[in-house]
Amino acid sequence: MLEPDQLSLNIPETTKKRVVIIGGGFGGINLAKKLKCREFQVVLLDRQNYHGFWPLLYQVATAGLEPDSIAEPLRKLFGGDEYEDFHFRLMRVTNINPVAKTVSTLVGDLRYDYLVIATGTKPNYFGNEQVKKFSFPLKQIPDALNLRSQLLQSFEQASMTTDPVTKQSLLNIVIVGAGPTGVELAGALSEMKRHVLPSDYPGLDFSKMNIFLVEGMDRVLPPMDPESSAKSQKYLEDMGIIIKLNTLVETYDGQVAILKNGEQIQTQTLIWAAGVAGALIDGLPEASVERGRILVNEYNQVLGFNDVFAIGDIAFMKSEEFPRGHPGVAQPAIQQGQLLAKNLKRIIRNEPLEPFKYFDKGSLAIIGRNRAVADLPKNIHLGGFLAWAIWLFVHVMALVGFRNKLVVLSNWVYKFFTYENGTRLIIRPFVRQGDRIKRQFIDKYNQE
Amino acid sequence: MLEPDQLSLNIPETTKKRVVIIGGGFGGINLAKKLKCREFQVVLLDRQNYHGFWPLLYQVATAGLEPDSIAEPLRKLFGGDEYEDFHFRLMRVTNINPVAKTVSTLVGDLRYDYLVIATGTKPNYFGNEQVKKFSFPLKQIPDALNLRSQLLQSFEQASMTTDPVTKQSLLNIVIVGAGPTGVELAGALSEMKRHVLPSDYPGLDFSKMNIFLVEGMDRVLPPMDPESSAKSQKYLEDMGIIIKLNTLVETYDGQVAILKNGEQIQTQTLIWAAGVAGALIDGLPEASVERGRILVNEYNQVLGFNDVFAIGDIAFMKSEEFPRGHPGVAQPAIQQGQLLAKNLKRIIRNEPLEPFKYFDKGSLAIIGRNRAVADLPKNIHLGGFLAWAIWLFVHVMALVGFRNKLVVLSNWVYKFFTYENGTRLIIRPFVRQGDRIKRQFIDKYNQE
Repeated sequence: MLEPDQLSLNIPETTKKRVVIIGGGFGGINLAKKLKCREFQVVLLDRQNYHGFWPLLYQVATAGLEPDSIAEPLRKLFGGDEYEDFHFRLMRVTNINPVAKTVSTLVGDLRYDYLVIATGTKPNYFGNEQVKKFSFPLKQIPDALNLRSQLLQSFEQASMTTDPVTKQSLLNIVIVGAGPTGVELAGALSEMKRHVLPSDYPGLDFSKMNIFLVEGMDRVLPPMDPESSAKSQKYLEDMGIIIKLNTLVETYDGQVAILKNGEQIQTQTLIWAAGVAGALIDGLPEASVERGRILVNEYNQVLGFNDVFAIGDIAFMKSEEFPRGHPGVAQPAIQQGQLLAKNLKRIIRNEPLEPFKYFDKGSLAIIGRNRAVADLPKNIHLGGFLAWAIWLFVHVMALVGFRNKLVVLSNWVYKFFTYENGTRLIIRPFVRQGDRIKRQFIDKYNQE
Repeated sequence: MLEPDQLSLNIPETTKKRVVIIGGGFGGINLAKKLKCREFQVVLLDRQNYHGFWPLLYQVATAGLEPDSIAEPLRKLFGGDEYEDFHFRLMRVTNINPVAKTVSTLVGDLRYDYLVIATGTKPNYFGNEQVKKFSFPLKQIPDALNLRSQLLQSFEQASMTTDPVTKQSLLNIVIVGAGPTGVELAGALSEMKRHVLPSDYPGLDFSKMNIFLVEGMDRVLPPMDPESSAKSQKYLEDMGIIIKLNTLVETYDGQVAILKNGEQIQTQTLIWAAGVAGALIDGLPEASVERGRILVNEYNQVLGFNDVFAIGDIAFMKSEEFPRGHPGVAQPAIQQGQLLAKNLKRIIRNEPLEPFKYFDKGSLAIIGRNRAVADLPKNIHLGGFLAWAIWLFVHVMALVGFRNKLVVLSNWVYKFFTYENGTRLIIRPFVRQGDRIKRQFIDKYNQE
């Protein structure tokens, strides 16, 4: 591979206005899809070459789906003839300069007419470096593959130890954060514990496998309706998950998690699903940033600029209805991306802009087979099989590519009837966050 | 994860005879499947937790299939009740001691009654350290994922360079070795070049993409019949692949491949499919090893021992019909594994052993859509659509798991009608063999 100084962004000059989008998540791709490239030249910059359907990431971590089932190559999404003046570059943006109207990357600068920041979020460890070093995040595909390897490797190692304390620390899994990711992960692990693992590891006693779910608030799924939280908590407890509310993980050294209430849990696997922070980019004035997100007006214009926009999770649009901004889920990002496409067209036609109005389609969380909760519009709250069927339908329909839908659906149908998680492959042995990677052991292990 | 000194193999003691199998490839799993665990305790040791269907590995490298389509978890294969006394351990064997009758691993020793070495092969660079350092092997799943990332990353980088020489070196792909792996890989890349890449990378001129296939012998597919070689060569040339016979790659520094005939090819991607060597384990006397493989008699007993066996690619069974041993493909391994299961049962019943007789079912190689060659028994040689249909049927049927067959078949059907390679995800940016990984660039690139 070449060095950055041998490369350049190499975007053709044009007489059209150039829209530069940073980030190919839900906001970025919906904007680019709607913009097409008739009136604008569109440049999409991302560090990954795919768009991920993150609500299903926990299924990759629990060996239910392979990465290609939840991700579509960005170039494939924009391969049609209508995207003739669309340009994707696999490149990290280092900073932006809203005065000079440029973005800087590892391989050079790019001038823009309109800039859209759609960088989403990254895990937030709240400054706890110790936890950051030893825990497993679940934000990206490599995270999910690492976690899958870690979980399977733990059971392999548990098969190779006779010391009960050590064995228990391999069989204890601590999930920090009972938002949708934490809850869905806990549910999926509990199903593996009952259906897949006992036949895979006949030498292990899985009644000793503990799944802890630690939450700082007083209920699981805090963003959902209290009725749904209560229902979910019951489902989780029925499935044997140990829920610890009103407490935080204070520290974790890779061996023992110490909770704020003083409790200690021996565990080799601590999964961090406790919070996210905006993936900010250098170059915006401090006044444009609040609580780690970018302040925008109702047109998603960044405070102080009328040619810089932020959409999705990174955007902080205060309103009476949403004083703390919109929920960090796919829908606001999708809707803001689609509206911004319309508004950019209005701008070049000197037409008045349309303000953003969030259409809340509801929230869903799945805990297990036939067990899900749904908060629907008009204050309707569902549970059980009905919510589960809605969850299945919504997620299959929302997956981007046609082929993905088929593969995911056939995997789920197969799993439903066989209780099998198909992709239990440890592709990267001993991969671990931070410096806990035991290089020596890895090298010994992998030696030819 | 725990340190090796915290672990032990932890195999229960038994009154049954203990068979220790090293390696879960075609030989190892067919032996274990047939042995069951009624008369023996079976211990399978492998460094991976899955059995790979390696003939399809090139499809993972060319974004046609995800790893789980060509691999089955070993524990899943032996999950049934009939395998009650079967024990898998994810562990590397460091050496064996045929006098003490033990195998040594990173976490301790294990006594055996019968030992079966089924470790297969590893890439053979013929001592060329330079080539080993800079080239891409294609032997294991991580290799295929690395190669997939490398290929896609090359096109991404080619989109970001204006220098014609640099661009050409990113668009030149050199495959060394025109055995089945090299030929099938060349064919798959050529199909990507025509059908997928031009729409993914509209800014690149793929008529400039060159696929070189370098072979030391005087024809492609040397193990097959000359008629099939000639047919394959024609298919490959029709598909635009540049074939260089009777020459070797002398050296490669990551930028320029220098051939024995003096020719130089600028390339960022050199794929090494030129040869394999037995994956030997320390501990056998020198006299038992020839040409990097383990000498065995017609019962697969290792020369000098009657309780140590070698099967599959690692075994070197000389016979009049096969003076250089059996071909390094799946069938001899499968058949030797199945026969050894029978023979081990005969041994404990004091019955005479049955000698191995290879039943050659023929060889197949696929070059592209409707283009394959088949050498069948009775000197029948097929090409074109018929050989292609046979290839498809044989490979789908041979895939181990039921679900895999469905997923693979649906992927292929989809691909056939759409010319789409679905899994074009760069999951690991800038991964590269040896020290060419530009750590600094990677870290910069991946920085949060």
